Amino acid sequence: MMISPKFTELVRALRCLPSVGAKTAQRMALQLIERDRIGAQHLADMIEQALGGIGRCKQCQALSETSMCTICADQTRNKSQLCIVESLTDWMAIEQSGAFQGYYFLLSGRLSPLDGIGPQEIGIEWLRLRLEDPAIEEVILATSATIEGEATANYLMTMMKDDQYHVTRLAQGVPMGGELEYLDGHTLALAMKSRRPITEG
Amino acid sequence: MMISPKFTELVRALRCLPSVGAKTAQRMALQLIERDRIGAQHLADMIEQALGGIGRCKQCQALSETSMCTICADQTRNKSQLCIVESLTDWMAIEQSGAFQGYYFLLSGRLSPLDGIGPQEIGIEWLRLRLEDPAIEEVILATSATIEGEATANYLMTMMKDDQYHVTRLAQGVPMGGELEYLDGHTLALAMKSRRPITEG
Repeated sequence: MMISPKFTELVRALRCLPSVGAKTAQRMALQLIERDRIGAQHLADMIEQALGGIGRCKQCQALSETSMCTICADQTRNKSQLCIVESLTDWMAIEQSGAFQGYYFLLSGRLSPLDGIGPQEIGIEWLRLRLEDPAIEEVILATSATIEGEATANYLMTMMKDDQYHVTRLAQGVPMGGELEYLDGHTLALAMKSRRPITEG
Repeated sequence: MMISPKFTELVRALRCLPSVGAKTAQRMALQLIERDRIGAQHLADMIEQALGGIGRCKQCQALSETSMCTICADQTRNKSQLCIVESLTDWMAIEQSGAFQGYYFLLSGRLSPLDGIGPQEIGIEWLRLRLEDPAIEEVILATSATIEGEATANYLMTMMKDDQYHVTRLAQGVPMGGELEYLDGHTLALAMKSRRPITEG
């Protein structure tokens, strides 16, 4: 049962949102048009404003309203460390952990040759430009521990093997609070292989 | 971790959608701004167009792009029957069942005195106007079988008790495919009380 062509178009447009199927989109459209027109107008305005006002930081490629994001513009951070992440959510997770005080570089995803995603698609050129900064002493590869994340890390390691800085990778092993009996064999084998001497502190 | 004030505003605006909490809204905003800017622009345009182009049918109060909806404008339907529903989704459910060929009237919800929703709030004046149509012979109360739906039906029955047309209510009982052992006692008692003689056809 179609209410009107404009309503059908709105339902279709709402499906660009993640995990929104036909039924959910219809429920959302009804909410916007029948019950909350003020909220709907506000949402349309905010989308327009965000699209117009949010670009990318010229240095780290993260979303930013200014040409340089707040982190890249912060001169008090550690200039010798650059952490390469594959998504904004990873970037936010590391920043929230409070364990890193250097600068970031955001790839546009990770290498996936089968899906046609090569070095150009994830923004390697921008990374090369960023790596020309002589202050960098350590590059931390914080891509995820999946097959594609590892492939991306390997590609970057090969690319940077002749450069002057140290290249490191996030440690892999038993997560905090992880019970050994529920851990998968791969992680356990890796944690065993990378075992380290007990030190104080 | 805030990306930018405009991003935060967008996340907040997305929460007007049904069942969208803080985490989901953030995921949606990232999708719109980082991955699918074309879809985001299209969504904003479609919301604007729907808000501007979709109003209410002057006769049945359903959403419509024209002053009279397709059903009210359809002269081949049964003019003697008017079915009163409490929401657009109920209207769509009845229309999809194909069991009704008359006209509809859409209330703006149901009576709920505790939430301050009285007869004015659900659009009783529009219903009174609609009921002045001399062609109406039967009014079917299709509000839902909840406490508030029943209260609304009771209110309408009292309001129409001196009018010339028949007032009927959707039958209640065992749903098609319903197993008696899983049915609640109230429904079973009601089905027993409203039992009917077996007729052919």
